[in-house]
Amino acid sequence: MSKDDFKTVVEEIKNSKYYKKPLGFGICRVDMGQLDSTKVLQATYPLINWCENYGSAAVLLDALHKSGCDLDLSSSELICDITLDVLQRALYTFEPYLEEAYGDAHKNIQTVATLYDIIKNDGSRPGEYRAVFIFEDSACISVEATYLKLYALSQSKVKLRSICLDGAFGALPNVAWCAGEPVELEWLRANEIELKLTNSYPHIDFVDKFPRLLQHIIPSDNTRILETSKVRFGAQLAAGTTVMPGASYINFNAGTTGVSMVEGRISSSAIVGDGSDVGGGASILGVLSGTDGNPISIGKNCLLGANSVCGIPLGDGCIIDAGIAILEGTKIGVCTSELLKIKEANPKVELNGDLFRAKELAGLNGIHFRQDSLTGEIIALRSKREIRLNQDLH
Amino acid sequence: MSKDDFKTVVEEIKNSKYYKKPLGFGICRVDMGQLDSTKVLQATYPLINWCENYGSAAVLLDALHKSGCDLDLSSSELICDITLDVLQRALYTFEPYLEEAYGDAHKNIQTVATLYDIIKNDGSRPGEYRAVFIFEDSACISVEATYLKLYALSQSKVKLRSICLDGAFGALPNVAWCAGEPVELEWLRANEIELKLTNSYPHIDFVDKFPRLLQHIIPSDNTRILETSKVRFGAQLAAGTTVMPGASYINFNAGTTGVSMVEGRISSSAIVGDGSDVGGGASILGVLSGTDGNPISIGKNCLLGANSVCGIPLGDGCIIDAGIAILEGTKIGVCTSELLKIKEANPKVELNGDLFRAKELAGLNGIHFRQDSLTGEIIALRSKREIRLNQDLH
Amino acid sequence: MSKDDFKTVVEEIKNSKYYKKPLGFGICRVDMGQLDSTKVLQATYPLINWCENYGSAAVLLDALHKSGCDLDLSSSELICDITLDVLQRALYTFEPYLEEAYGDAHKNIQTVATLYDIIKNDGSRPGEYRAVFIFEDSACISVEATYLKLYALSQSKVKLRSICLDGAFGALPNVAWCAGEPVELEWLRANEIELKLTNSYPHIDFVDKFPRLLQHIIPSDNTRILETSKVRFGAQLAAGTTVMPGASYINFNAGTTGVSMVEGRISSSAIVGDGSDVGGGASILGVLSGTDGNPISIGKNCLLGANSVCGIPLGDGCIIDAGIAILEGTKIGVCTSELLKIKEANPKVELNGDLFRAKELAGLNGIHFRQDSLTGEIIALRSKREIRLNQDLH
Repeated sequence: MSKDDFKTVVEEIKNSKYYKKPLGFGICRVDMGQLDSTKVLQATYPLINWCENYGSAAVLLDALHKSGCDLDLSSSELICDITLDVLQRALYTFEPYLEEAYGDAHKNIQTVATLYDIIKNDGSRPGEYRAVFIFEDSACISVEATYLKLYALSQSKVKLRSICLDGAFGALPNVAWCAGEPVELEWLRANEIELKLTNSYPHIDFVDKFPRLLQHIIPSDNTRILETSKVRFGAQLAAGTTVMPGASYINFNAGTTGVSMVEGRISSSAIVGDGSDVGGGASILGVLSGTDGNPISIGKNCLLGANSVCGIPLGDGCIIDAGIAILEGTKIGVCTSELLKIKEANPKVELNGDLFRAKELAGLNGIHFRQDSLTGEIIALRSKREIRLNQDLH
Repeated sequence: MSKDDFKTVVEEIKNSKYYKKPLGFGICRVDMGQLDSTKVLQATYPLINWCENYGSAAVLLDALHKSGCDLDLSSSELICDITLDVLQRALYTFEPYLEEAYGDAHKNIQTVATLYDIIKNDGSRPGEYRAVFIFEDSACISVEATYLKLYALSQSKVKLRSICLDGAFGALPNVAWCAGEPVELEWLRANEIELKLTNSYPHIDFVDKFPRLLQHIIPSDNTRILETSKVRFGAQLAAGTTVMPGASYINFNAGTTGVSMVEGRISSSAIVGDGSDVGGGASILGVLSGTDGNPISIGKNCLLGANSVCGIPLGDGCIIDAGIAILEGTKIGVCTSELLKIKEANPKVELNGDLFRAKELAGLNGIHFRQDSLTGEIIALRSKREIRLNQDLH
Repeated sequence: MSKDDFKTVVEEIKNSKYYKKPLGFGICRVDMGQLDSTKVLQATYPLINWCENYGSAAVLLDALHKSGCDLDLSSSELICDITLDVLQRALYTFEPYLEEAYGDAHKNIQTVATLYDIIKNDGSRPGEYRAVFIFEDSACISVEATYLKLYALSQSKVKLRSICLDGAFGALPNVAWCAGEPVELEWLRANEIELKLTNSYPHIDFVDKFPRLLQHIIPSDNTRILETSKVRFGAQLAAGTTVMPGASYINFNAGTTGVSMVEGRISSSAIVGDGSDVGGGASILGVLSGTDGNPISIGKNCLLGANSVCGIPLGDGCIIDAGIAILEGTKIGVCTSELLKIKEANPKVELNGDLFRAKELAGLNGIHFRQDSLTGEIIALRSKREIRLNQDLH
């Protein structure tokens, strides 16, 4: 088979009723329950695809169909066991590309070829490897599809807050995690006496529905995560982000879009821009905690001081001083001269008066929030941080 | 032997001089020092009993006595090595219940039977397994009894702050913990050269006298502890508690009595009620830090905002705003209209004036602590949180 | 050879051109890259010497020279592979002390003898063991010398902030740490497919250039570090320091000089004195964050309240109340009577007026920083904490 033949075959598959264009797909290895061996606890993907590599998706769907797998393409998710036969059929179609599939080229083919060798040589548990397809961005149903979406977020294949994670908490089981392996709590209970008396009780790192980012994602060379517990799987860290081990935490569907020093909390759905630092113990509130469901974005080149609290979105070049809390309802004084400067930095925004609710200042550039240490008043000044004005605003 | 015979035998033992009603008891496996092989470093209990199962206690004491163990029942603690002979004698008495001892039934008998099999098949180090009895709630003497009390707390067999933990710090050795195994610091020093040169220096997770809760306790299915270091053994978490990995920490003899989202610190002896959330970085002061020895209880349905500090007990439905500190001596303004509402929520309490020390408001329901962002004044309002008034107060 | 002979030999070496008095030296085991086997990822020292044991340095340099090692003594750092031949030659010279080299005596000789046995019995990878000498306190060049300096700091061989760590971030590679073993991120990428499909993907604890203190340092018996991630290698903890797992962190080149309860952040270059406590979530700013490059020292017997922020140096017996931030520019009111008391506690200092910038109060003894909860004003009082006045001031 030539590469041209391959293209023809793929086109044929794409026109068949066994193909549907997937949003995302991949092959994963699943961990099953110790007590309930039909229960999926975790799905590990060597590679995921998101709005890409449809040819590989076609080959995989075709191989599954030909192996007798019943393909229901009507649901938002499709999960099929992978057998040696499926892999063999896929490799047959991938044949013209096999030789050049190494390094960064043809990662899907590498995955299929590697898995073929593994199963051929060492066998596999039934259902250990699965092909997973997501056809529609609706609520998460399976563990496998939920993980696929979390990979898409954490590998920056999709933007934060851009995909549907409804149902994720329901789909994922709460388990004990032991050096990356999920263990059913019920299994621990059923075996506690023997495990403890024989000194073989497992060492548990944490108990949660979500794993940690570093269990699944290899960060960029200049990214540092000084403690694995600090970043949940499903978070997204831009290259150059540093996460310190003090009071920091980055939840799923939250993270950074550029270089950032993170020593505080980026709650679920919060996003921090390039060059912005989250000081030690600073808190950016999440949609589940105090922001009335409004997700917070922090612009570029901002500074959240140590132990500050940020409850509103910020534009570029903003500062919240150490130790103060700016919540949606916080009343903030702005003197006339500073208001003028703030308006210069935000030419399209209407601002009048000398007293504002914090949410009226939400998203503005160049604001410095302080507490006057003589009067206790929370005030806003024009920050001395540089702002590169967004051209869209002019 | 029939079940009736069993009851007769147990009654006989209870009337003998080898029996004394224990407060708590259990069988544990102990880890000994690497250098000092007589030093107990940790005691692991597959099961503990607290004010319960006196029949099993009687059988165990009787078996120990008959095996030649010298039972000194005059001290507050009794610790005896467990041998195959002890277990055999106990199993002989437990015989009528042996067949039904599985699942959740007759856990003490399961423990004895399991340990019998283990020692019979694989042997044991001398002193590896011990029977431990606490007869009186006085200061901790042994490592084994200290662990038994910490289990009682963490398994909610006793209420927080209800048992004596004096002497615990003295009883427990400070050790390096390596995946749950305690290692003497002195042993590391004595072997540092060889361990490091042969790349066999152990990976140390922490150095402390106490282990972590998850080394000994299996949480409820809906409890989540996102990082094991965040909860010390001896803490108590009600089902449904979530402990986040940011700035949180729950010390021993502290914890939650209901569903709670914990993203801050619950210091030693502090207790948080059902439905109350401890925001990111919030601190509840402990008896050792700033509360004059008065332990703090937080009522139901309270909210401690991000980076707030709570130095007084709170009733139900209270709020401390993000970023502010309410200490015993903090002066707090209350305007007339709010005072009226606060009095309605606390009908039995005398409150007059417009200025209070925080400790005068300690334990009241429905208080919202804020800092006026225009004047810097700390004020108390009637919170908008629902309070289910305690019937005892009416 | 007698001990007198030994001394003569050492004098001869010291006068040779193969000797130069080292600032620090030691023998280390290095971890190399998985992909790039020439790249040093970590250096582990069973023992380091700093301004001491020049005789052992001489013996080692002589043995290296005689084994044919090319000794370039002109650079600030010298690193040589250690072979069995080197060790044999060194042991030959050390012979008169061999018998008494155990316990705490002659640790350098113990190291050489132990390594000789290890290599003789089990062999070694080429370059696995290295002799490292630092001749000059200039910028770090090699991984090995950087680690030697970090050991010197963490083993209290040198004072905090007293040696040059320039170049450390450049010298150390950013790696994934798996139970103490450094792993190249690039190797993970190159093998991700196979590692994940075979369930042999390593469990990563963190990703950083620096290891953690507990990977290399054995703390004092009364020191407690409740979570290893909380103390970076290169930090210095005095005996009796306790580091809690909540919001705390101690960076490299920072730490404590006496007994201290640390529940907050001691940023890079910050130093905390004996008897001073860093409350839960408290932040001491570092040279890289908000102090204009002025490193902060906290005196003895101070208290940083929960969630406070300290941006200036403090003398002895100072308090910063919970929840407030004292930055260099913070304006602080001081009433006349308190100013008098503060002056008594700081007899050599000129202080006039009733309003100060915080940096004008930097380093003073006995100051209590509060926020007046009625007016919001930040004020300074004479603290009620005892100060043992430094005799140098009188």
